[in-house]
Amino acid sequence: MKDLKNAQLGRVFQELLPLPATMEPRLKQALQYILGNPGSLIRPGVLIRVALEYGLAERPATDLAIGLEYFHTASLIFDDLPSMDDAVERRGRECVHLKFGEAGATLAALALVNRAYALTFRSIAAAPAAVQAEAQRYVERSLGVDGLLNGQSMDVHFAALPHDLQTTERAAVGKTVSLVRLTLVLPAILGRAAERDMLLLDKIAVCWGLSYQIVDDLKDRLESTSATGKTSSRDLLLDRPNVALAIGIDGAMRRLKRLLLIGDKALNRLLATRPGLAFLRELHAALSTDVSRLLELSDLRSEGEAA
Amino acid sequence: MKDLKNAQLGRVFQELLPLPATMEPRLKQALQYILGNPGSLIRPGVLIRVALEYGLAERPATDLAIGLEYFHTASLIFDDLPSMDDAVERRGRECVHLKFGEAGATLAALALVNRAYALTFRSIAAAPAAVQAEAQRYVERSLGVDGLLNGQSMDVHFAALPHDLQTTERAAVGKTVSLVRLTLVLPAILGRAAERDMLLLDKIAVCWGLSYQIVDDLKDRLESTSATGKTSSRDLLLDRPNVALAIGIDGAMRRLKRLLLIGDKALNRLLATRPGLAFLRELHAALSTDVSRLLELSDLRSEGEAA
Repeated sequence: MKDLKNAQLGRVFQELLPLPATMEPRLKQALQYILGNPGSLIRPGVLIRVALEYGLAERPATDLAIGLEYFHTASLIFDDLPSMDDAVERRGRECVHLKFGEAGATLAALALVNRAYALTFRSIAAAPAAVQAEAQRYVERSLGVDGLLNGQSMDVHFAALPHDLQTTERAAVGKTVSLVRLTLVLPAILGRAAERDMLLLDKIAVCWGLSYQIVDDLKDRLESTSATGKTSSRDLLLDRPNVALAIGIDGAMRRLKRLLLIGDKALNRLLATRPGLAFLRELHAALSTDVSRLLELSDLRSEGEAA
Repeated sequence: MKDLKNAQLGRVFQELLPLPATMEPRLKQALQYILGNPGSLIRPGVLIRVALEYGLAERPATDLAIGLEYFHTASLIFDDLPSMDDAVERRGRECVHLKFGEAGATLAALALVNRAYALTFRSIAAAPAAVQAEAQRYVERSLGVDGLLNGQSMDVHFAALPHDLQTTERAAVGKTVSLVRLTLVLPAILGRAAERDMLLLDKIAVCWGLSYQIVDDLKDRLESTSATGKTSSRDLLLDRPNVALAIGIDGAMRRLKRLLLIGDKALNRLLATRPGLAFLRELHAALSTDVSRLLELSDLRSEGEAA
């Protein structure tokens, strides 16, 4: 098993979408801007290690990891558009549409999507014939009207939906869990993992995906609270699903701890027969750091309220 | 060979993107709106007949045809957005973004794109293993930064490009020819057609794709001229590539006739060994009707100018 380090992965992120010399210059510049500034690349790093553990070769593992990262990046570019979240900054830089216009951002995101499907299916084509159809359906379902796009649509049109925990978490299952599922379960499908492994990985994906989303939701509530002293938040402003808005900050904290606990149990059961996946604990550690910080913020808030 | 009639094809266009009951209502409504109003479906009809001629089974032929029609439909929805052509009407109805908002239109178009890739690759997976990788690359190249998206970007950013015939036609090769190529050449690749057939089909695709575009360009110039008595046109207003703007109306007419002639020659050579493709003449006939009407408009214009 060969570990691709982060810098290497950043280079692969750049290189796996070659830009032809004859390209329209603005589209080329927009893609260079995007490809030159990857995110943390945690997700593709994890995917590659899961894939290698289940016997995939390095090339299809890397194709899949970067393909999914292109999907993810494209979804962020769309998400940031004025018609959706109207964001100004992403990954520490000006949003793509602010630099290259909405049309430029849309076309660049579609170019990432096109390359993402090509890489994903090249990776699937390298798998045993018996699992290819299942893997393709899994990709389609995770990204389409049953998955990511449905979650995104619930996000944007949340004003018209019930604001309860169930609906809020359904949006997160579509929007956030889908990509975590693809990261953990899809390589297992391609590697013909045992049914038990896939069920446990799916459970971990759901628990961690929802946990990530709650951490995000809490940050949205708590950071704005501590920074401005007001309880306003971007999710409240835009009327977006937010677990801390649905069941309160303390309720969201409890839900988060519970999800992390269930995820941990599933991970322990998985590691009993798959010790090679122990690196997944690192992901949990990263989440826990976030949780500790949020607990501090939450305490600060309580003190502020008591004062 | 079983001919799918137009109404049947319209039903398949609707049915091949099943909408789950649990979908977010606005996204569902947007997709129902789109799927319930297909275009002329000439392209998928032609693709199916070409595919059957080259020995594909009806199911992969239909998957591919409808998949490409979803790509095409999605590209029109993006194209109509305020940031691109800011259109108000498409296929005789209000544009998707005017009815469902820009976010709604974007997500619905992405759902079409996701399903389009799934159908396309399901169709490719049914082909002999030896041609699958080539077919996938062909799809990716035709739609991505070498093809459709590049053409679209040249269209949107044309103001910064040279306004000569060569650049104008390069935009059309990306924007218009790419989908005609997928319609005529991709089924031949999947059916392992002879190299000669593929070269001739490619030549026909280029000539007819460019011809379609010139007909469109001439309509933009002539219809606005005859209707308003002014020489303004939408392409001029938006600064979009238009052959009739690059080399004048008479020059465009000459170019159109020449392209049709070269296309005819290639078609005749193809039909000498592939008489089963004679239905392609119908497409040419449809183009010729358009050309005759344009000639009339052009005469009217000349008379108007002389008056």
